[in-house]
Amino acid sequence: MRAPRSDAPDTRGDILATAHRLFREIGYRKTTVADIAAELKMSPANVYRFFDSKKSINEGVAERLLGEIADALEIEATRPDATAPARLRALLVTLSAMSEERFLSNKRMYDMVEDAMAESWDVCDRYVARCDAILIGLVRDGCARGEFAIEDPEAGARCVHAAVVCYCHPAMMAQSQEHPHASIEQMAEFALRGLGARERG
Amino acid sequence: MRAPRSDAPDTRGDILATAHRLFREIGYRKTTVADIAAELKMSPANVYRFFDSKKSINEGVAERLLGEIADALEIEATRPDATAPARLRALLVTLSAMSEERFLSNKRMYDMVEDAMAESWDVCDRYVARCDAILIGLVRDGCARGEFAIEDPEAGARCVHAAVVCYCHPAMMAQSQEHPHASIEQMAEFALRGLGARERG
Repeated sequence: MRAPRSDAPDTRGDILATAHRLFREIGYRKTTVADIAAELKMSPANVYRFFDSKKSINEGVAERLLGEIADALEIEATRPDATAPARLRALLVTLSAMSEERFLSNKRMYDMVEDAMAESWDVCDRYVARCDAILIGLVRDGCARGEFAIEDPEAGARCVHAAVVCYCHPAMMAQSQEHPHASIEQMAEFALRGLGARERG
Repeated sequence: MRAPRSDAPDTRGDILATAHRLFREIGYRKTTVADIAAELKMSPANVYRFFDSKKSINEGVAERLLGEIADALEIEATRPDATAPARLRALLVTLSAMSEERFLSNKRMYDMVEDAMAESWDVCDRYVARCDAILIGLVRDGCARGEFAIEDPEAGARCVHAAVVCYCHPAMMAQSQEHPHASIEQMAEFALRGLGARERG
C-alpha cells in the first residue's frame, strides 16, 4: 500500500467505502478497480494513486471490517461499572453476533474474507493479536478484582479465545453450523466457569 | 465404494495399508492407483474391484486414520477406576497428540486430510459425530457421579469439543501454531473448570 498523500484520508476512505459496498452488492471477485473508480466518478489511475492493487483495496476493506469488530469488543471489555464476568459475557456475544453478520449472512462478504485470509495474513494476524490483547486485559482486570480465580490470566484469556473460534472464524463458523453446537450464551457460561468466575449473574 | 466381495476384507485392508504408506512416503497427490497396484503386485483393475476411484481409497484411509483417533478417545473416556475429570484430561491430551502426529507432523498427510475434508464430508462428519458422542457420554457419566456440576451435560460436552478445535482440526491446528496459544494441558484444566469439575487432581 502506498503512503497516502495530503488529500488522502477522504479519498482513501471513499474508495474503501465504495469498494465495501460493491463487494456486498456485486461480490468481491466480480468487482474491478474500474467499477470502483466509475462509482466514484474518478479514473482507475486515481484509485491506483491510493491502492497499488485490488489486493490492497481488499486488505483495506478487511482491515476496516475486522477493526470495527475489535473496536466493539474493546468497548465491551472496558465498560465502566460492569463486573469483569458481565463484560466478558457481553464481549463474547458481541463477537459472535458481529462475526455472523459479517462473515456468514452474506456469501459475497464470506468470499472476500476467505480471500483476505488466504492473501493478507498480516491483516488477520493483527486482528487476532488485538483480540488476544483485549481478552488478556479483561481477564487480568477480573483477576485483580477477585472476580476471576485463575493462576495464569494470559493462558486463561487464550483459552477463552481458542474456545470461541467456532463462533468467530469464518471457515469454522461455516463448518460448525453443519453440526449440533452449543449457543454462544452456553459457551460464555462455560468460559466464565473456566476462568473461575465468582459472579454468575 | 463398492460392496466388498468374499475375499474382500484382507485385500481391502492391504490396499488401504499400502495406500496409507505411499501417501506418507510419496505424498497423496502424487500417488496413483497404478502405484498402489504395483506395490501389491496386482493389476489396477483388481484395485478397482474394491475401490471405484482414488477418492474412495482416500476416504478409506481417512476413515481408518480418524477411526484410530476415535478408538483411542473411547478407551480414555471409559477407562475403569478413573474419575471423569481424569478421563477427560487424558482424552483431550490424547486427541491433541494424535491429531498433531497425524495432521501436522507430515505435510503429505496434511494434504491428504485437507483433500478428504474438501471431498469427503461424510467421513469427517461421522468422525465429528463420534467424538461428540464420546464426549457427551463422558460428561453425562461425570455429572451422574457428581464429579461435574453443570445443568446441561450435552451442551457442556459440545462446549468442550468446540473449545479444543484448535488442537484437533487440521486447518485450525496449522493456523493456531502461528499465534501464541495455551497448551493442551492448560486448555484441559480450563475445560474441567468449565464443566464445574469437583476434582482437580
